[in-house]
Amino acid sequence: MKADNIFSAIPVNLDSEMFEVLLQSDNVTIERIVSRGHQSPDNGWYDQDRNEWVLVLRGRAELMFDDQTVISLDAGDYIHIPSHKKHRVNWTDPELDTVWLAVHF
Amino acid sequence: MKADNIFSAIPVNLDSEMFEVLLQSDNVTIERIVSRGHQSPDNGWYDQDRNEWVLVLRGRAELMFDDQTVISLDAGDYIHIPSHKKHRVNWTDPELDTVWLAVHF
Repeated sequence: MKADNIFSAIPVNLDSEMFEVLLQSDNVTIERIVSRGHQSPDNGWYDQDRNEWVLVLRGRAELMFDDQTVISLDAGDYIHIPSHKKHRVNWTDPELDTVWLAVHF
Repeated sequence: MKADNIFSAIPVNLDSEMFEVLLQSDNVTIERIVSRGHQSPDNGWYDQDRNEWVLVLRGRAELMFDDQTVISLDAGDYIHIPSHKKHRVNWTDPELDTVWLAVHF
């Protein structure tokens, strides 16, 4: 048994968002995402087959949904995004690393 | 669509550990646990039918496994506990709230 740290091994250079699977099972994927000012392209809507529960561990971000609602997320904020609810990353803080935990199920 | 904060609504008085289901689906339960110096009773081993992935968001804790291994967890540390791997909470910091995120699957 061994613990790892979710804030470890964040690269100094981060040209694009970093996605890293922490755990994969039949029904669940747990992923770390690191953003540094990255956002989805204007037409870069996520339309996912699975539900996603996402928590901002560090940093600040905005999610946009297809009805143009924008939700601001600070550290500790979490939201459940049902499958096929179209969304995009509207903004992440360019001054900080934004570290997300995403649970896909 | 609405975000909630994982550090909100922690009671001033916490006589026992606090367990709160944040999300429940067919395959997955996501739970917040708050400890304030609490630990499992000496014979209080968890022997769970499901896998558990647990992350310490704030505070400090120790888990003990049935081979007597003790794992220290600081903020950001996570560990995967397979189903039926017996474990108990050996210690949590009495000076701080320890906030855990647990994903059962």
